[in-house]
Amino acid sequence: MAAALGTRGGSWLKGFPRCFPGTTARVRRVYNRAGTLGTPMLSKRRRESITAGMGPFVGLLHTSHIHNSGCRQELQSWRKQQTDSSVLSRSQLLKEPAVGMVSGLLGILLSHGTKVMYQSDMPQAAFFSPLQKMMLPPNAFKGKVAFITGGGTGLGKGMTAALSHLGAECVIASRKLDVLKQTAEEISSKTGNKVHAVQCDIRDPTSVSNAVAQLIKEAGHPSIIINNAAGNFISPSEGLSANAWRTITDIILNGTAFVTLEIGKELIKAQKGAAFLAITTIYAESGSGFVSPSASAKAGVEALCKSLAAEWGKYGMRFNIIQPGPIKTKGAFSRLDPTGAFLKGMIERIPCGRLGTVEEIANLATYLCSDYASWVTGAVIRMDGGEYVSMAGEFNDLRKVTSEQWKMLEEMIRKTKGS
Amino acid sequence: MAAALGTRGGSWLKGFPRCFPGTTARVRRVYNRAGTLGTPMLSKRRRESITAGMGPFVGLLHTSHIHNSGCRQELQSWRKQQTDSSVLSRSQLLKEPAVGMVSGLLGILLSHGTKVMYQSDMPQAAFFSPLQKMMLPPNAFKGKVAFITGGGTGLGKGMTAALSHLGAECVIASRKLDVLKQTAEEISSKTGNKVHAVQCDIRDPTSVSNAVAQLIKEAGHPSIIINNAAGNFISPSEGLSANAWRTITDIILNGTAFVTLEIGKELIKAQKGAAFLAITTIYAESGSGFVSPSASAKAGVEALCKSLAAEWGKYGMRFNIIQPGPIKTKGAFSRLDPTGAFLKGMIERIPCGRLGTVEEIANLATYLCSDYASWVTGAVIRMDGGEYVSMAGEFNDLRKVTSEQWKMLEEMIRKTKGS
Amino acid sequence: MAAALGTRGGSWLKGFPRCFPGTTARVRRVYNRAGTLGTPMLSKRRRESITAGMGPFVGLLHTSHIHNSGCRQELQSWRKQQTDSSVLSRSQLLKEPAVGMVSGLLGILLSHGTKVMYQSDMPQAAFFSPLQKMMLPPNAFKGKVAFITGGGTGLGKGMTAALSHLGAECVIASRKLDVLKQTAEEISSKTGNKVHAVQCDIRDPTSVSNAVAQLIKEAGHPSIIINNAAGNFISPSEGLSANAWRTITDIILNGTAFVTLEIGKELIKAQKGAAFLAITTIYAESGSGFVSPSASAKAGVEALCKSLAAEWGKYGMRFNIIQPGPIKTKGAFSRLDPTGAFLKGMIERIPCGRLGTVEEIANLATYLCSDYASWVTGAVIRMDGGEYVSMAGEFNDLRKVTSEQWKMLEEMIRKTKGS
Amino acid sequence: MAAALGTRGGSWLKGFPRCFPGTTARVRRVYNRAGTLGTPMLSKRRRESITAGMGPFVGLLHTSHIHNSGCRQELQSWRKQQTDSSVLSRSQLLKEPAVGMVSGLLGILLSHGTKVMYQSDMPQAAFFSPLQKMMLPPNAFKGKVAFITGGGTGLGKGMTAALSHLGAECVIASRKLDVLKQTAEEISSKTGNKVHAVQCDIRDPTSVSNAVAQLIKEAGHPSIIINNAAGNFISPSEGLSANAWRTITDIILNGTAFVTLEIGKELIKAQKGAAFLAITTIYAESGSGFVSPSASAKAGVEALCKSLAAEWGKYGMRFNIIQPGPIKTKGAFSRLDPTGAFLKGMIERIPCGRLGTVEEIANLATYLCSDYASWVTGAVIRMDGGEYVSMAGEFNDLRKVTSEQWKMLEEMIRKTKGS
Repeated sequence: MAAALGTRGGSWLKGFPRCFPGTTARVRRVYNRAGTLGTPMLSKRRRESITAGMGPFVGLLHTSHIHNSGCRQELQSWRKQQTDSSVLSRSQLLKEPAVGMVSGLLGILLSHGTKVMYQSDMPQAAFFSPLQKMMLPPNAFKGKVAFITGGGTGLGKGMTAALSHLGAECVIASRKLDVLKQTAEEISSKTGNKVHAVQCDIRDPTSVSNAVAQLIKEAGHPSIIINNAAGNFISPSEGLSANAWRTITDIILNGTAFVTLEIGKELIKAQKGAAFLAITTIYAESGSGFVSPSASAKAGVEALCKSLAAEWGKYGMRFNIIQPGPIKTKGAFSRLDPTGAFLKGMIERIPCGRLGTVEEIANLATYLCSDYASWVTGAVIRMDGGEYVSMAGEFNDLRKVTSEQWKMLEEMIRKTKGS
Repeated sequence: MAAALGTRGGSWLKGFPRCFPGTTARVRRVYNRAGTLGTPMLSKRRRESITAGMGPFVGLLHTSHIHNSGCRQELQSWRKQQTDSSVLSRSQLLKEPAVGMVSGLLGILLSHGTKVMYQSDMPQAAFFSPLQKMMLPPNAFKGKVAFITGGGTGLGKGMTAALSHLGAECVIASRKLDVLKQTAEEISSKTGNKVHAVQCDIRDPTSVSNAVAQLIKEAGHPSIIINNAAGNFISPSEGLSANAWRTITDIILNGTAFVTLEIGKELIKAQKGAAFLAITTIYAESGSGFVSPSASAKAGVEALCKSLAAEWGKYGMRFNIIQPGPIKTKGAFSRLDPTGAFLKGMIERIPCGRLGTVEEIANLATYLCSDYASWVTGAVIRMDGGEYVSMAGEFNDLRKVTSEQWKMLEEMIRKTKGS
Repeated sequence: MAAALGTRGGSWLKGFPRCFPGTTARVRRVYNRAGTLGTPMLSKRRRESITAGMGPFVGLLHTSHIHNSGCRQELQSWRKQQTDSSVLSRSQLLKEPAVGMVSGLLGILLSHGTKVMYQSDMPQAAFFSPLQKMMLPPNAFKGKVAFITGGGTGLGKGMTAALSHLGAECVIASRKLDVLKQTAEEISSKTGNKVHAVQCDIRDPTSVSNAVAQLIKEAGHPSIIINNAAGNFISPSEGLSANAWRTITDIILNGTAFVTLEIGKELIKAQKGAAFLAITTIYAESGSGFVSPSASAKAGVEALCKSLAAEWGKYGMRFNIIQPGPIKTKGAFSRLDPTGAFLKGMIERIPCGRLGTVEEIANLATYLCSDYASWVTGAVIRMDGGEYVSMAGEFNDLRKVTSEQWKMLEEMIRKTKGS
Repeated sequence: MAAALGTRGGSWLKGFPRCFPGTTARVRRVYNRAGTLGTPMLSKRRRESITAGMGPFVGLLHTSHIHNSGCRQELQSWRKQQTDSSVLSRSQLLKEPAVGMVSGLLGILLSHGTKVMYQSDMPQAAFFSPLQKMMLPPNAFKGKVAFITGGGTGLGKGMTAALSHLGAECVIASRKLDVLKQTAEEISSKTGNKVHAVQCDIRDPTSVSNAVAQLIKEAGHPSIIINNAAGNFISPSEGLSANAWRTITDIILNGTAFVTLEIGKELIKAQKGAAFLAITTIYAESGSGFVSPSASAKAGVEALCKSLAAEWGKYGMRFNIIQPGPIKTKGAFSRLDPTGAFLKGMIERIPCGRLGTVEEIANLATYLCSDYASWVTGAVIRMDGGEYVSMAGEFNDLRKVTSEQWKMLEEMIRKTKGS
């Protein structure tokens, strides 16, 4: 099995289509027409062309996606809102000049060249080379059931692969059953352990309720629950419609709450414990411009987890949080930021001098979900190569002063001193 | 005017019906029948009888209220959800054994006596007696327009009164136009400055949009915006339905966002700046069991404010946060906690040895909204008599060790030492 | 080796004298005579009798100790201060009725019985039983050198044992060479890997410099550095002399800085990277009464680590922090808190319903020091069974309301409602 | 009096020599000779010439200073350390190529021009123009005694001036009696209220004890205590000697503790309450490279204040913290950063688009020390124009994307969509 788990530089995900492929992780912004309250509209074709041109933030966002069905629902609610004053056919709606995927902006703004991809690591990255092997001992999750939202792609897929390798029976959920099924089969065929696919729109309590019923019926009560599904808009906040705002709140905060409350109630009834893990972000505490809905909703998720860590410990449940920084992806960066200017700037402020990997997050996640961490609850763990402390510290920009410059000063002062 | 503003021990609110009267601040819990997804149901009469028997947490919650119309809306959405499988008339719904106001529990549990109200202050409170006078100089807000959500009652009313006293033209908003109008007239008659009442359900973007239009039309662009409206359920989290959860998120987080985004866009268009203030809670950062929806939504509000403080400074907007601890109310405590046991426990852990007053919060709020604080943005200010640090510090329970006991130990050790 | 590492319920420390034995971990309070500036005085005999009667906080404090030599030094500095106005012989000093070990107070106050030890776990602890096995794969630290301050006892010893088991060549440092040597031999004999003992008073830069020179000479540059040495006084702050304050600052904050700066400079010269880990406490951020010097110094350590995480990443160094909650010890609790009243109160507020174990901390510590965590820097990880969030959340005391009581209320309201 | 207090754009400090003049605020770095443990050496002449050329960080540092006498003391302690192995005369020491004032580096690096000073405000600063008038009503501190460390210059002087204007009898303390006396007289002559000057080296418990005795004897027990004295080195951390580190810890952390404990004990004895205020920094929580000693010591101060807020509330004492961002100074910036490049960069990331003023900090400080804030304790208040949230939020760099660029993207996507 050691071989299967890969060696340094390799990965247990080797052979898998890489996580965060540009074709599956999606970030959309709902365009707000001329001061109205916002009208999210996406034709399927449009969405695909956007996806094909995904921006540099895909990996950054450790974000799941906003699927077609959600969009349809938004449209319906929008149409419902409009019906008093106006009638628009669906086809009309879809013809509106509607969608902007603002994250693409950066790609477009920065894409003046096409060739050489920026060598993305700083010199010190040599000291911090990622250890891509599985950390926990084999079978650490033997006999356990894990439920992962947004488990079909990206980080969710990576964590699912790790749990499955370590013996867990995994149940992955999102709205796209086809994607889920493909991921489930792919992982299962490598690990030899069952992976179930369960369709679920976490924004809809009924859908959550059904999915949880299916989860329990098919695999039993989960002892690991990872709230990983998310969505994001990168946009000036003044460009956000109320619907855009609500879409993010619904997915991230309400969705996490619905899943957590529903599973929690079932576990209480069954008198079973579990380890919950939520994936948030390093800007949940600090807030951040241009991603205010996501910052707010993720902050809400953190408060929920801390609240329940305190309250539901008595039922045998633990709740922890990982705040990932920017995670490495394949393709997305090179496609949209060919000169590497944007990536370069970001990596320069990360003390470890490189992006993180899905495998690193997965190792931390499996630790937190394992019994090795059975005394860890209510904890918030930042894994970001130091980006947060580097940004937040007022004098850290002095890193741009070279040691030659520091020395030069000392020399000057030394000479001056003779006087 | 100094006289009007009251003196120490008095208040500029003197003569006003006290804030947080039991009859207006409301806290409800949506009862979750036997594993269904939650069915919030409240007859008007029932709500009133609950309200009349409000519990000790009213003041604690620095909470606005969840009004009739909101409830009706919840019912409608609930009915809509049910129509596929069942048909229930509204009257049937209202006959369901439905509502639990869990906050009342404490009152009931603790109400074994009826007589002497607990003298609510600890000895040290003598050192911390509240200064109820207006702090800012007269006319500090002359010529300015202030918009306050949840401004009809409680803290919102107190802050409105203060702003009005200091010269602002105030616009208060909530769903209850009758309450608003009464408050508006009451304040205006005392201060001589206009107070407008604008109906608004902050959960509804259209309602917000209309209210903001009305605000600008009647009073002009606001340069002070206080997001104060809130709601809360005190309940074991496993007792929360999805609807109960969403109700809180909608009011606190989405409502604040809708108001903020809408006004922000208008200010940007008009190239005007403003000071925004949000009222959250001391458990927004730490989370807290039994109030998880409120903790989460308030944490979201804080992240929103910090995000926009960073992003919208360039437009001349500031965003700050007050986290109030438990605020003094009149009547509520004595009615439902006659022995004072619960109140006593709470006050014992507050270093200042007493509850806060509406006037104290209002003085801090007016400071933050004034130009004296024009360089304060992205700040979070806890005003809680020290309750948070007292709770959070691991060894603070040693306050129960008396100085006699500490001395006794030293004596014992001293004697032992003779050897 | 699996056997050597123990199984659930056992420990890789099995066979070792348990960590935190009452006879080695020491907590002292410097008695402040009648308003003078504090005069720390401890005869060796006295210290031992105190130690024999160690209080319930020993384990809590995840604290190393304040050794004889330090005391002597304090005395000298004190005598020096006094020489202008008075002359006291050392023997006079040692006869002063001086020392109070306040942590013992609780033991004394609570020790009314003698027999049955409180069963220290809450019912939910069954869900959170500690996994005492080594988490990382064998040889994870093969060929690496680890330096651990306060490595002779307690947590430091536990982490050293874990690192040694995993292949590291360990160098442990403290002032007591005899204790260190015994620990070194004990661990080395079990793991088959070298453990060096280096005498070092971390408060003294020269001593640190010498110890680091010896470390590098004997074992080479360390790639793991654990700043674990600490000290604490549990005392009303008004009972602290300036010397008592400075003693804690010197050990915890200055000591950590001296070790870190000295080793850091050597690593920079040698162009080698390393993972630094500091052990602080859950009250470093919140502060806490009765342990203010420790809270302050630990907060300082956290800021140092975050500062260097940002600044020294470029040199290949990472800096992380574990904040442990109360850790289980053998003997201490039962001896001084026979009725279990104090322990009971503490455990009741820990969501996991039990104390932590040295092995759990050691597993987290080895993870953070390993290459699995090479993208973790500037992180602060709380491991406390949820105690912090439980204390900090304003409404968590409602856990004392039983579910029967919550139900009772609902029933009452239901009945009332008929009207 | 209104006139005396100045009007918007003016200041109650008008007529006073400006705070933070280059000639009084000092920042030094102790040069570490070739790998030794650090040898702080400063000739008096050298110090003065450095001071005359103070760098752009003076204002930034909201730092008091490290005076001659302290330096002398360091030298003495250093000489004492050396005497075992070597003998160096004082004159030898002073000839060493010793001092570097690293903060000057930036000035030197950036000083290519001499003429036009950078217009330091961003466009939005027009919205945030500082209100320099006194906020509190006249005589708010009538009959009260205030004690301010580092009160002779800078922020400390500004806060003293404000308190004195408002009626307090002030006692200012630092090591430079001549500076203190001049400030005391200057303020007193304007306000008509007594200002006392008390010499005190806060690093020395005996000096603190004497100063407190003098304070109480001359003015009575203080009811306002501002811990404002500080020091800082701006330097790569690998350039710090152990002595440099300890110098900062001693001033900031130990000094604050000695003052606080000493006064606290006296207040307890006299059964009097008081409001304590500490001035820290926005990087106390986040840490920051290049100022690690200051970050650590300030973090320690914050923990001390929070600890005592919880513990000493019962004695009538409150403890709060202001974290100032960069404060405006006169002269310093223009002298050393004539092109304004450094200043420009800093101001661009401050949402309010300008530096803060001493008067603004003083208004907040007087509020927190007044009875208007008698229910504020354990609070940490950031006043930084939003710099912290702006730095910390991961996506805030997108502020560099112009609205034209955002629009351009939307246009492009709109066009693309036609397909």
